[in-house]
Amino acid sequence: MNDNNTINSAEILCVGTELLLGDIVNTNAAFLSTRLADLGINVYRHTAVGDNPERLRRALKLAIDENDLVITSGGLGPTYDDLTKETVSDFFGRKMYLHDQSLARIEEYFSRTGRVMTENNKKQAMMPEGAIVFTNNYGTAPALALYDEEKNKTVIMLPGPPNELVPIFNEEVEPYLHSRRESMLISHNVNIFGMGESSVETALKGLMQNAHNPTVAPYCKEGEVRLRVTARASTKEDADRMCEEMIANISATEVGKYIYGVDADTLENAAIKHLKRKGLTLSSAESCTGGLIAKRLTDVAGSSEVFLGGCVTYTNDVKMKLVGVSAETLERYGAVSGETACEMARGVRLALGSDIGVSTTGIAGPGGGTEETPVGTVFVGISTEKGEYVKRLSLSSMKSRSYIRNISANHAFALVLECENNNGKK
Amino acid sequence: MNDNNTINSAEILCVGTELLLGDIVNTNAAFLSTRLADLGINVYRHTAVGDNPERLRRALKLAIDENDLVITSGGLGPTYDDLTKETVSDFFGRKMYLHDQSLARIEEYFSRTGRVMTENNKKQAMMPEGAIVFTNNYGTAPALALYDEEKNKTVIMLPGPPNELVPIFNEEVEPYLHSRRESMLISHNVNIFGMGESSVETALKGLMQNAHNPTVAPYCKEGEVRLRVTARASTKEDADRMCEEMIANISATEVGKYIYGVDADTLENAAIKHLKRKGLTLSSAESCTGGLIAKRLTDVAGSSEVFLGGCVTYTNDVKMKLVGVSAETLERYGAVSGETACEMARGVRLALGSDIGVSTTGIAGPGGGTEETPVGTVFVGISTEKGEYVKRLSLSSMKSRSYIRNISANHAFALVLECENNNGKK
Repeated sequence: MNDNNTINSAEILCVGTELLLGDIVNTNAAFLSTRLADLGINVYRHTAVGDNPERLRRALKLAIDENDLVITSGGLGPTYDDLTKETVSDFFGRKMYLHDQSLARIEEYFSRTGRVMTENNKKQAMMPEGAIVFTNNYGTAPALALYDEEKNKTVIMLPGPPNELVPIFNEEVEPYLHSRRESMLISHNVNIFGMGESSVETALKGLMQNAHNPTVAPYCKEGEVRLRVTARASTKEDADRMCEEMIANISATEVGKYIYGVDADTLENAAIKHLKRKGLTLSSAESCTGGLIAKRLTDVAGSSEVFLGGCVTYTNDVKMKLVGVSAETLERYGAVSGETACEMARGVRLALGSDIGVSTTGIAGPGGGTEETPVGTVFVGISTEKGEYVKRLSLSSMKSRSYIRNISANHAFALVLECENNNGKK
Repeated sequence: MNDNNTINSAEILCVGTELLLGDIVNTNAAFLSTRLADLGINVYRHTAVGDNPERLRRALKLAIDENDLVITSGGLGPTYDDLTKETVSDFFGRKMYLHDQSLARIEEYFSRTGRVMTENNKKQAMMPEGAIVFTNNYGTAPALALYDEEKNKTVIMLPGPPNELVPIFNEEVEPYLHSRRESMLISHNVNIFGMGESSVETALKGLMQNAHNPTVAPYCKEGEVRLRVTARASTKEDADRMCEEMIANISATEVGKYIYGVDADTLENAAIKHLKRKGLTLSSAESCTGGLIAKRLTDVAGSSEVFLGGCVTYTNDVKMKLVGVSAETLERYGAVSGETACEMARGVRLALGSDIGVSTTGIAGPGGGTEETPVGTVFVGISTEKGEYVKRLSLSSMKSRSYIRNISANHAFALVLECENNNGKK
């Protein structure tokens, strides 16, 4: 399995005191992990250390000792505490030199974005001897790879900001790594909504424990369960076929009816695809979710084909003005009621002329709960020309505002997924 | 500095193969880091390893050897690959026993949420001898602390889901740690919008390099710069006063005019506070941001006092129907134009009866760009009774859809922050 120059194992080492202070969340580690898994490279550890030369050196030594590949993020900036490149260079015993193309590119970047180049930015153009320099079209710090052939160790250094790291990886690092992989590890996600993790695992226990290739691993994400099916094979086609067979086995169990997609990524993605397939348009009227449904739908590029728009009706007055909820309904049943949810969904559908209207009204907390309608009470409505339906959610009042809003949006997307163009009810 | 039973240094060790596969982002490490910093405990490393007994054991040994405290997240679940508690217990040479209160609580949790308790959930009630058990009111896995007095090493084990980990930490772990801290480390964030990181650092270079207590550290967050000012002292009052003096020094430099708040957390938070202080109400009309402005405003609990609601006007037709943009404007200037942005802001303000209306229209990409209006072109508008203003953004077409949408929303919030009740223009 271990050819001399093949990369099998990797560690992701993120550098930056802001990570250890909790000022930023480490999305780079997750992104890089996904992409390395696709390349068939096993990631065995994530490490984050601060902008401290000694701790960085120790973390780097440990990572290099145990793995073929180390990818670092951060510490390539212009400031005095950006030390990754210098530390790695020192570790491999390489000298630094001024890389003319990088300097020219940094100067050009500053002139193009109309900003002033300060002296400390020149530090970013210093490179260790023998480095492969990756162009950074998105910022000033060039990325680089150092490969020690004798020890078969590779360190790839990327800038910390995700909006630089992600495109550089896609455009330059992935092609570089592609040529050095050995076997193909392919994963597919089975998306499940409406069944808890323990129940899924109990239903699939035998199947999961006996599965070695492909493997099946469950994990939770706010209100959803996903099963990651991963196969290792010498070609993508073989691995895909092995995954397909396993997914068919899973679908044949009681879990099957809760599966809303494979590699659907998110419920909103699945909803958009469903609407496109059915040729239906959608609009939204949101109270407690406050724009989250529209935001999540429009996160999906191309959503404008099926999502016409929506209203955020945060007050009673706006519920009446924008989506025509009647004063009587608000008076008799209250803003947080199935009746109001129903009129909101109908109202926005008629106002915008869409095939489907969805709505939410509820108490996301932390304040605003009462005995009859505690925090976590949410009504999710859907309206089409043929019929209307409202679902009452009683989420735990202990859950966070963000959780309650997200789960409410999930239920709205799930209702859209059940909606057929020839079927009035839902 | 090192009393026998004081906690000075810590590592956060997160367990779960889903982290190494990139399926979830490690928000727990960021949350725990922030809270430990507030307690005056230095976090020196984050580590994430998979559900693998041998690697977990090695990571744990390294973390315990180098730190007074290790906080783990994950691997306390009911499934066969959840191994954190067993590994830690083994490491400290403690036996496991069935903790009756935990079992009773798990049974009660299942009965309350109306779910079926499966046999494997009992595993969650097994505890190492001598453990301090923390109640989990949000899920089935109890959290726990193991303290070895002789070695002065503490391991705190928390469940992986953030909606369990966060409240357990706040309610049970923080009080436990509070009694064991030594000196107080207090941080305040200075929020800056409209000036780049290099320029900020150049302006503050002398000040930052000479600052040891308090320290001043800059970091970037999509389109913003923050300066973290951190002081160490024996009391909160002393540390706060030291921070205040440093912040006054920073404000006196050219950076001062770009500061929009201290500990403002986010621009939307600052905007909501500003509106409350001024007694103004707000509404939004969004095209390219698609609900993101409303979503971010309503993320803030209590935003309903000043935010009335908004419209997501994703198509031309909806722009005319909901916020009264004229067909002539759309025809002559196009949907992505200053004129349309202006009519949207005015239209939503009048439709909802708010004091201020904000709007966005632009090309968030990746598709839809043209030569005159490339991806990244966004118009942000604001309208009050006294005047109107539109800002044209030319963001790099290389940036992601998510980045362009977020920066556009940031500019909308910045315009709101400049808005006075006695001042028409902006």
